[in-house]
Amino acid sequence: MSVEIAKQYFELMDSVKAGADDVMELYGDNPVVHSSRAGVVRGREDILQFYEDNSDFFTGGQHHMTNFHQDGNTVVCEGYLDGETAVGREANGVPLCDVMEFNDDDEIVVFRAYLDYEGYIDEVPEEVPNVRAESE
Amino acid sequence: MSVEIAKQYFELMDSVKAGADDVMELYGDNPVVHSSRAGVVRGREDILQFYEDNSDFFTGGQHHMTNFHQDGNTVVCEGYLDGETAVGREANGVPLCDVMEFNDDDEIVVFRAYLDYEGYIDEVPEEVPNVRAESE
Repeated sequence: MSVEIAKQYFELMDSVKAGADDVMELYGDNPVVHSSRAGVVRGREDILQFYEDNSDFFTGGQHHMTNFHQDGNTVVCEGYLDGETAVGREANGVPLCDVMEFNDDDEIVVFRAYLDYEGYIDEVPEEVPNVRAESE
Repeated sequence: MSVEIAKQYFELMDSVKAGADDVMELYGDNPVVHSSRAGVVRGREDILQFYEDNSDFFTGGQHHMTNFHQDGNTVVCEGYLDGETAVGREANGVPLCDVMEFNDDDEIVVFRAYLDYEGYIDEVPEEVPNVRAESE
């Protein structure tokens, strides 16, 4: 049941014991992640690295998920993120939406993250990924 | 049909002829908007002002919507935003997700926007709205 897997995902993300390897167990083969911060990340190896970088960036934080919507093999997860980052910024209650597409084995194969990073960074980046162009 | 209304919404947002008044025609009574930039905005009058402020902030731009998911009375709209802002920043292909809840008359009553503003601003804000706290 895909919604249950989605809920597990956020439990793992917030767990101090779980690592990027544990999160990767929810992913299937040849997955793709879209993130406004990192752009388009393809394949298990690069996505593992993406989660490791993410742990370095967010030194603390917690998800508060409020709504899960299911449409076919897609689960849309809405909530808020409290976060503390390596660059010394902190923001609470920032809206977060993660869209997960599952395969028939209930594994995540596409993940699209929507999050406003302005509360978590020290200065705005010169270059912002064109995720649309990268995804084509 | 709620998905059709959602598509109309983005056509209006991108139209040079349509204004905030036209967008408000898609909203029902006592609506609520959640935005990571503006926080929680309640009621038709304040939401009209929110769209007027939005037009001042985004001096140019276009939505490229890619996916619409429906679960009951909720429609989740995924896409990308190309935007040019009053503060002189420009970013293209930034992931955008808008969640709309409809009433039985196919009018929007709750709207939750997920967008990373870091590409569109000159400097990071000192205070970031705690949207979770404001929504309670």
